[in-house]
Amino acid sequence: MRKKLKNKWDILKQKIYIVIYGSNTFAGKLFDLVLLAVILLSVLLVMLESIESFDMKHHISLKVCEWIITVFFTIEYILRILCNKKPLKYVFSFYGIVDLISILPMYLSFFVADAQVLTVVRALRLLRLFGILNLVPYIGQESHLKLAIKASRTKIIVFVYFVLVVSIILGALMYVIEGKDNGFTSIPRSIYWCIVTLTTVGYGDIAPQTIQGQMIASFIMIMGYGIIAVPTGIVTAEFSNIKRNRLDARKRRNCPSCTTTIYDEDANYCYNCGQKLGDVFKK
Amino acid sequence: MRKKLKNKWDILKQKIYIVIYGSNTFAGKLFDLVLLAVILLSVLLVMLESIESFDMKHHISLKVCEWIITVFFTIEYILRILCNKKPLKYVFSFYGIVDLISILPMYLSFFVADAQVLTVVRALRLLRLFGILNLVPYIGQESHLKLAIKASRTKIIVFVYFVLVVSIILGALMYVIEGKDNGFTSIPRSIYWCIVTLTTVGYGDIAPQTIQGQMIASFIMIMGYGIIAVPTGIVTAEFSNIKRNRLDARKRRNCPSCTTTIYDEDANYCYNCGQKLGDVFKK
Amino acid sequence: MRKKLKNKWDILKQKIYIVIYGSNTFAGKLFDLVLLAVILLSVLLVMLESIESFDMKHHISLKVCEWIITVFFTIEYILRILCNKKPLKYVFSFYGIVDLISILPMYLSFFVADAQVLTVVRALRLLRLFGILNLVPYIGQESHLKLAIKASRTKIIVFVYFVLVVSIILGALMYVIEGKDNGFTSIPRSIYWCIVTLTTVGYGDIAPQTIQGQMIASFIMIMGYGIIAVPTGIVTAEFSNIKRNRLDARKRRNCPSCTTTIYDEDANYCYNCGQKLGDVFKK
Amino acid sequence: MRKKLKNKWDILKQKIYIVIYGSNTFAGKLFDLVLLAVILLSVLLVMLESIESFDMKHHISLKVCEWIITVFFTIEYILRILCNKKPLKYVFSFYGIVDLISILPMYLSFFVADAQVLTVVRALRLLRLFGILNLVPYIGQESHLKLAIKASRTKIIVFVYFVLVVSIILGALMYVIEGKDNGFTSIPRSIYWCIVTLTTVGYGDIAPQTIQGQMIASFIMIMGYGIIAVPTGIVTAEFSNIKRNRLDARKRRNCPSCTTTIYDEDANYCYNCGQKLGDVFKK
Repeated sequence: MRKKLKNKWDILKQKIYIVIYGSNTFAGKLFDLVLLAVILLSVLLVMLESIESFDMKHHISLKVCEWIITVFFTIEYILRILCNKKPLKYVFSFYGIVDLISILPMYLSFFVADAQVLTVVRALRLLRLFGILNLVPYIGQESHLKLAIKASRTKIIVFVYFVLVVSIILGALMYVIEGKDNGFTSIPRSIYWCIVTLTTVGYGDIAPQTIQGQMIASFIMIMGYGIIAVPTGIVTAEFSNIKRNRLDARKRRNCPSCTTTIYDEDANYCYNCGQKLGDVFKK
Repeated sequence: MRKKLKNKWDILKQKIYIVIYGSNTFAGKLFDLVLLAVILLSVLLVMLESIESFDMKHHISLKVCEWIITVFFTIEYILRILCNKKPLKYVFSFYGIVDLISILPMYLSFFVADAQVLTVVRALRLLRLFGILNLVPYIGQESHLKLAIKASRTKIIVFVYFVLVVSIILGALMYVIEGKDNGFTSIPRSIYWCIVTLTTVGYGDIAPQTIQGQMIASFIMIMGYGIIAVPTGIVTAEFSNIKRNRLDARKRRNCPSCTTTIYDEDANYCYNCGQKLGDVFKK
Repeated sequence: MRKKLKNKWDILKQKIYIVIYGSNTFAGKLFDLVLLAVILLSVLLVMLESIESFDMKHHISLKVCEWIITVFFTIEYILRILCNKKPLKYVFSFYGIVDLISILPMYLSFFVADAQVLTVVRALRLLRLFGILNLVPYIGQESHLKLAIKASRTKIIVFVYFVLVVSIILGALMYVIEGKDNGFTSIPRSIYWCIVTLTTVGYGDIAPQTIQGQMIASFIMIMGYGIIAVPTGIVTAEFSNIKRNRLDARKRRNCPSCTTTIYDEDANYCYNCGQKLGDVFKK
Repeated sequence: MRKKLKNKWDILKQKIYIVIYGSNTFAGKLFDLVLLAVILLSVLLVMLESIESFDMKHHISLKVCEWIITVFFTIEYILRILCNKKPLKYVFSFYGIVDLISILPMYLSFFVADAQVLTVVRALRLLRLFGILNLVPYIGQESHLKLAIKASRTKIIVFVYFVLVVSIILGALMYVIEGKDNGFTSIPRSIYWCIVTLTTVGYGDIAPQTIQGQMIASFIMIMGYGIIAVPTGIVTAEFSNIKRNRLDARKRRNCPSCTTTIYDEDANYCYNCGQKLGDVFKK
């Protein structure tokens, strides 16, 4: 009798699993879309709440929605754990943690005042959209993007590190030149200014006043204007490189008898062993 | 008798069609230039009107010009419909709609107050200039530009989507860190700030004040400085790719007997069937 | 007797010509360096004069220097005309006009008050430095830079035109949305703002205040962030293209007997006519 | 007896040398890490000191740390000199000077007031990190980065020079147009503004107010937006160029008998002397 129940439960679990994790069945697709909608809604909600004037007016209704969504997320979270073969693996996976901390704040808000502010972490759930919208091929392991970034990772890190060191040195310099009176009140602050300038963001909340300061600033700007070419150059080179390899790979085929690689799309005979090449190898 | 008239009318229609839609005849060219001038004038007019001080002085003359142009556009619009074989196709085409809404506001201004402000939509007519100035080859379906953008469309969309998600997450974070007192009055606002920073625009109307805020801002800036390399890399790779293909295509020719594609510019015999290749195939 | 004088004069003219226009002789080099120094000095002078506090102190000395330089330039100008075979060609050449208008203001300052401000045009003489410093190969007709820019000229123009049209349309839109109260006092001004935003400059003197305005601004920024990839892509593609061609060209050589082009650096025999290829053709 | 001592000393010297300059032994690695930590700490310290509020609170403890670090650096400096075969070479090397001036200020602070501010030069010691973290391969002589920058050095310099000349000319122009009342108080200042604009930094501390000024500014921005493509194009082209060469180089191998270079990965026979090529040459 219990065995029977257990069995039923297992079947149910599998059903749920397919719905939640799969996206081939109709139910699966539907669930994904609903989840997508709810996540977007939840993020929208957090935004609206943060707008004081709006929060004043619709405080109650916002709260209600908040709770509905929280409950929905909670159920989803529990189901994900229950129907998963390896629950722990999910719980301690990135998404598992995100899912958890995106529901906790509301429950915490009972005990801790304004813990609710933490609901913003929910924004992280937006990352699920990449999965739901099948964007993974474009950002996943195999994508040009990933490959290019991977290939130029170290170069980029060195570049960033270089930018930081330069910023610290020049920031310190500007602190000495401009001094506290012109807004460069501390070295960290003038380093911050230096990054703002080097990256061509240029808020203008801090700006050099002295002639020497402006000369160094000009130098930093032109430098920043120039070195933006470096990461671009690196990534672009990697991109075209990957692209080229892909193209070559597509053209390449092997001789059936001597397995030589043949690059010439239109060759009829293997230039190595003279074996006739069938069109089956062509695309 | 009526038949004759009808006939005359048909001939006239065709004449008008050639003038308005064609640009080979002298009349057609002239019409294009006039239209070009009037469109530019109309946009200029809208601009001038929007400058209060100027509007005060020359209110009447501006109004008059407005009406002259509106009438001109109205006539043009009617003629375009009349002389077109498929009037509806034009009416519901993008340009058809633009042409319509660029004349409506003036007529509306009788009934609705300050509907005239809508005359700005006329700016959209500037898009016609691409057609008039024969710039289509540079932005049209076949252009490198279009092809490159097309080829990297999805990548760019994913990129933009990524930027948005990052902005939302970091925006929310900054809202918690900086808080209402430092200008980050709401999450949407700090998302706006985050986009301003990530794109290296940096208005400075909102700027982080706390040390932590400035550290995150620095991180965002350097990130933004780095990821600008991504779209550039994508587009550039596509560009050079298209360019290369085009070049290869130009070199390529086919064997007269077995129609194999031959890539080698200087080959004298088809490497496939041994057919002698005449120089006629070379360029 | 006069003939003799005339002759002397001709020889002198030629001597001067070599000194002024040539840069192979010692005198020529010296003259170039002196000119270089004086031009830089003159520009520096104009800058210093514009600094009120500094001008107060050293008004006289500045004036004196001004006049010395003006006289020097005047003499140079006259000599350039005298010793030139085609004086008019020089006078109406770009440099000729620049040289003239860089001395006129001082003389005008007798009759017209504060005509002296126009001495700033002297800055244009800095362009001569490209010539003096032999930078022409890097920016001249034959340079990669020139070629790449030339090849992508039309594309860039279309791009700029596109940016302008977009700016006008979006500027007009922002004018309607934000309105006079938020700094978008007129359409030209909001077009200006739009360009400031689209080019990621972002002064912040004008910034959207309304939510809708900020949303459109965000859209413009991300767009601007994305389309910066386009000119970069174009120019880069041209660059690598030119580079590739140059490299290929360097490797290429022709068979002495059948004049076939041979791309393989290391080939010993012409693959077309079997002619032995001497190393003389290799570099 | 003394000889023995001398000998001992030599051995010790060598030991120290290995520890300080080498990084293969455990002691060497440890020393590097400690040095790394201390340098970071020292820089952090200088930053904290510059934050007035913080300095107020922990003045004494900061001073103490300062002295500990200074002593540590002093000892390191002395040891580096002692155990080095060519002490002078080190002393007058870049790092040698940096190491010296990074300890001097503290000692100077006895005699000169607020000489301590100069401790910021210590930031330069951060450059040692490139060495410690083995980042040299990425920025060293052989790196793609160095090569690409080297190859495009002159082009970049010309580019920067061009930007400067343009800035001076346009800056002078803006000074005339906008005048002292709109913040363009002097030509150097409006040149500064022009660089700020051209590099798309755009602080907004100075911004054009007149229509003409804004039109020129718009022109400068779009130009700046366009010419950023130039350095990027240059560097990228160099990058992909170097990359391509590297790849080709990897494929290349030499014929064992006639040492001809063979580019074809799959060739079995030397196309030059007919020598059979073993797979040993393939990778």
